[in-house]
Amino acid sequence: MAFRARIRVRFGDIDYAGIVYYPRFLHYFHVALEEFFEAEVGIDYPEILNRHRLGFPTVHLETNFRRSLRYGDLIDVEIRVLEIGRTSITWGYKGYNGKDLAVEGQNVTVSMNMDTFEKTETPAWLIKGLEAYRQRCGEGV
Amino acid sequence: MAFRARIRVRFGDIDYAGIVYYPRFLHYFHVALEEFFEAEVGIDYPEILNRHRLGFPTVHLETNFRRSLRYGDLIDVEIRVLEIGRTSITWGYKGYNGKDLAVEGQNVTVSMNMDTFEKTETPAWLIKGLEAYRQRCGEGV
Amino acid sequence: MAFRARIRVRFGDIDYAGIVYYPRFLHYFHVALEEFFEAEVGIDYPEILNRHRLGFPTVHLETNFRRSLRYGDLIDVEIRVLEIGRTSITWGYKGYNGKDLAVEGQNVTVSMNMDTFEKTETPAWLIKGLEAYRQRCGEGV
Amino acid sequence: MAFRARIRVRFGDIDYAGIVYYPRFLHYFHVALEEFFEAEVGIDYPEILNRHRLGFPTVHLETNFRRSLRYGDLIDVEIRVLEIGRTSITWGYKGYNGKDLAVEGQNVTVSMNMDTFEKTETPAWLIKGLEAYRQRCGEGV
Repeated sequence: MAFRARIRVRFGDIDYAGIVYYPRFLHYFHVALEEFFEAEVGIDYPEILNRHRLGFPTVHLETNFRRSLRYGDLIDVEIRVLEIGRTSITWGYKGYNGKDLAVEGQNVTVSMNMDTFEKTETPAWLIKGLEAYRQRCGEGV
Repeated sequence: MAFRARIRVRFGDIDYAGIVYYPRFLHYFHVALEEFFEAEVGIDYPEILNRHRLGFPTVHLETNFRRSLRYGDLIDVEIRVLEIGRTSITWGYKGYNGKDLAVEGQNVTVSMNMDTFEKTETPAWLIKGLEAYRQRCGEGV
Repeated sequence: MAFRARIRVRFGDIDYAGIVYYPRFLHYFHVALEEFFEAEVGIDYPEILNRHRLGFPTVHLETNFRRSLRYGDLIDVEIRVLEIGRTSITWGYKGYNGKDLAVEGQNVTVSMNMDTFEKTETPAWLIKGLEAYRQRCGEGV
Repeated sequence: MAFRARIRVRFGDIDYAGIVYYPRFLHYFHVALEEFFEAEVGIDYPEILNRHRLGFPTVHLETNFRRSLRYGDLIDVEIRVLEIGRTSITWGYKGYNGKDLAVEGQNVTVSMNMDTFEKTETPAWLIKGLEAYRQRCGEGV
């Protein structure tokens, strides 16, 4: 089973149209990714940055918004590892409101040395952890 | 010339990696779009919602992040109208930091009746204004 | 015992100084208040707005920030009802990071009819629920 | 005359109640403070952090919200320097929507060495600049 993070739509997430402000969905994806690291890779996302000096800036993003969400809604963000390159990772996200797919997307992150701000190879221990997760839960496409 | 909105990267826009939190770029795009309406279509975005009861939720989004931005940077977001459908509009965004392209993207919005929350035809007066802008500044691709 | 909401400091909550952006603490207070309603008053905060057409805009706020918080920290926000007026409520917040008090504050909200945007008397059922909570957990000062 | 920063209420600043989400006002105060440094102290706020390694975390905050603001409103945030201590500064903020005072507040910041994260004396050059501003525009109380 793929990892899911449950997030509640908050009062302040709503925009003037009365629905979730769409940049907020990318925040939800990021929160889910933070939780994913702890739950599935066995390492806190803060620790990756603090101890391993590794960051994952997004270089590409694609998202389809299928249903608007409202205040109080729950969104379950499912994380998948779609591709693991030498210096990049492609992540897949599906956000469900109950059984309904509300939003789906993917982004490509590059592995970055946080001291030099330069692209770096993704460390073997992380690739191993992500590969194990991918085989455990499938690509889900 | 295409419309450009100048936005300054704020203290609170920065994330733990010391660069602009990437969902924040989508907020920059939205702010630029709000300014575009007033400057180029001759109508405040709030008024479109309040008086015309029209909203433009995003259904699709694609973005490439080319350079990270830092606290204090200026970003000039250029807006283009790429396609005008019967009920949808495709917008193009290019965010420059000086001469450097930092981020580029496009999103598709659907025209929505804000009372019924249903898809509706984009009004003729808006299509006319957007077409005029498109011919004035080119597609910029 | 007073109600506590546990909130995790997120990657995007951090500012350029590397600590939680201070306006974000007020968001944490609000999130805790939203959870408080469901847990202690037995009614969802969204439902109060949707069904009872009641809102609680803040008219006064005081906050002391005692310790800065960092990415990954947990904050337990404790909620207290300090005063219940005819049309206003004074709420107390204490945010703990482990045993350390990181932030404490209070705000005064007025009860507002969400259709007319006018001040209104706090409904008896809500006063009753808040009084019961106050007696259950003490004023905590 | 006191320094004023003009800020526009954005689509995403609005909450579920249809007015500016109140933590957002503290963001407006911070944005105004950032602009104040450049305009009145003659130094970019980013540079103070980058070059002088100086930060100003807030330790105390008080705010009165007098009028709610809506999407599209302009807010002019006036900045005053109320007190200059050896290691702390008290700032005053008044946010006007046209001639109407919408929000007023003050916060106390401490001067912090950004390398050690310890309290430090406010540098003489900054005190001098702030004193000059205070005499130029009055305390405004």
